Amino acid sequence: MTQSLALTQGDPAGIGPEIALKAWMAREAAGLAPFFLIGDPDLLARRAERFGLPVPLQPCAPAEAAAVFARALPVVPLPMATQAEPGRPDPATAPATLASIETAVGLVRAGRAEAVVTNPIAKHVLYAAGFRHPGHTEYLASLAADPDGAAPRPVMLLWSDLLAVVPVTIHVPLRAVPDLLTADLVVETARIVDRDLRTRFRIARPRLVLAGLNPHAGEAGSIGTEDRDVLEPAVARLLREGIDIRGPLSADTLFHARARAGYDVALAPTHDQALIPIKTLAFDEGVNVTLGLPFLRTSPDHGTAFDIAAAGIAKADSLIAALRLAGRLTRP
Amino acid sequence: MTQSLALTQGDPAGIGPEIALKAWMAREAAGLAPFFLIGDPDLLARRAERFGLPVPLQPCAPAEAAAVFARALPVVPLPMATQAEPGRPDPATAPATLASIETAVGLVRAGRAEAVVTNPIAKHVLYAAGFRHPGHTEYLASLAADPDGAAPRPVMLLWSDLLAVVPVTIHVPLRAVPDLLTADLVVETARIVDRDLRTRFRIARPRLVLAGLNPHAGEAGSIGTEDRDVLEPAVARLLREGIDIRGPLSADTLFHARARAGYDVALAPTHDQALIPIKTLAFDEGVNVTLGLPFLRTSPDHGTAFDIAAAGIAKADSLIAALRLAGRLTRP
Repeated sequence: MTQSLALTQGDPAGIGPEIALKAWMAREAAGLAPFFLIGDPDLLARRAERFGLPVPLQPCAPAEAAAVFARALPVVPLPMATQAEPGRPDPATAPATLASIETAVGLVRAGRAEAVVTNPIAKHVLYAAGFRHPGHTEYLASLAADPDGAAPRPVMLLWSDLLAVVPVTIHVPLRAVPDLLTADLVVETARIVDRDLRTRFRIARPRLVLAGLNPHAGEAGSIGTEDRDVLEPAVARLLREGIDIRGPLSADTLFHARARAGYDVALAPTHDQALIPIKTLAFDEGVNVTLGLPFLRTSPDHGTAFDIAAAGIAKADSLIAALRLAGRLTRP
Repeated sequence: MTQSLALTQGDPAGIGPEIALKAWMAREAAGLAPFFLIGDPDLLARRAERFGLPVPLQPCAPAEAAAVFARALPVVPLPMATQAEPGRPDPATAPATLASIETAVGLVRAGRAEAVVTNPIAKHVLYAAGFRHPGHTEYLASLAADPDGAAPRPVMLLWSDLLAVVPVTIHVPLRAVPDLLTADLVVETARIVDRDLRTRFRIARPRLVLAGLNPHAGEAGSIGTEDRDVLEPAVARLLREGIDIRGPLSADTLFHARARAGYDVALAPTHDQALIPIKTLAFDEGVNVTLGLPFLRTSPDHGTAFDIAAAGIAKADSLIAALRLAGRLTRP
């Protein structure tokens, strides 16, 4: 039996419910695999009416979603006691937001969903309700922990049709990057990328590149020493393990069309080295893929957008791309 | 009388002579303004024959170049004693390389050329011959010094039809950037950019943006403090001076098409933040423009390419773009 993708509700005051409705409306044009939303059917119905989105909703069990999907948006119901208003984040909605995520992970781990696709959440809303994880991805990793308690190490991949990148460091001060960027970190990150490209992306022999930390990858140590002393040894270790990786390479000449043809994923030391090129090339269509987890997770590459959530003008492109990629990667 | 652009020979073992010949061949298709090359006519004739480039050469004075340009490549002759071979850099050619640059600056300062367009040089070849400047641009600045000896501060602008960027720091280790990035440096750089956009690019009211140093421009100090404590005050100072500048803005969302429509030039704290987006969008057509000098200088955005200089396969796109931009900016 075909399983469906599990889509979380995200923060109900954000654009998540709206873009979920819009993604279902685009299901045929975008060629989307069946998905079900885990959330409050009443909230979705109110949001559909408010924004004039003609989306029939069908509460159902996960196993029924594939059959329902062509004619209605399947909703695995998690009724909320709170009336969430778009644009008005409310810590009282946090339990429902978290329950949607926990349910999605439970279903995918039990084999009752193909993959998890998450709508955006707002950490500050969850923190106000007692949430204690650094972010969405770390929370998912903790939910994926083995019974002995060790959480897997998640790796963020930003994916688009034109380019896929992995920032080796993410939301840290630039000043901290040179010391955080150890050979071990690079090796562990590249191993996870290589393994998940093989298993989840079904690329037989993934080709990785590593951008340098310093301008021109340090020009053999004359512009900073980390490329020569940290990144080159990391690449040498990875090559000895049989991983196909080149680098460190000058980051500025790594992302034009001819260069991109030479690799599947580019790893970059800093957040901006990785995110600038993909957001320049594919601003609306970027997908956030979490590697390293025992299941596939994709998400749109944007936040809750509380500022426009009451207006009904949110673009569903990135969620559609996240659903499409999850469907493509889990197709038998 | 119409003056022409002064094009330097660059390192004679590099691709400079070849791309100069190819640029002249493309003069009509590319709509180039008249230029003359300052170099060795015999070397150019040998290079044209070797690569099968049907380019008639006409030694002449700068003032004659505009009349010559339609039918032959005007060459302001600087005969060399050395037989430079493509792909074989030779410190013995250094005096001729430097003389071409000095002649170009002398002519433009005397009003006998409209602007200086430079072909690539190789610092290590010049260093071996006793050259003591950090680079091409600093050498030009020293040639532009006033009689009292103070050299102007040059600012590197990378320009293309799609995007123009200024790296506030350039070829320095990433580890050094947070301490180098003072408010004074940002203010002085932005002032020069604003002034030269008005005078040289004839933009009546230039719109500048400043990228943040840290991911998401530091998120109000929660990811590094420099954006809040250094860049925000610098922007405030510039605004008080009447300069139209916004920032610090998250660097990753600053370079897609909709964002680019909102500014003329983006300043970025690091080399890669500035060069990644322009080389991703316009790899072959980027032009290096030096602001802050008492004359206009443009150059192709690549090096001597000794590795392919003997093959005759060099692309002249970037030099053509540099000549076209210089012609456009100096048109009456």
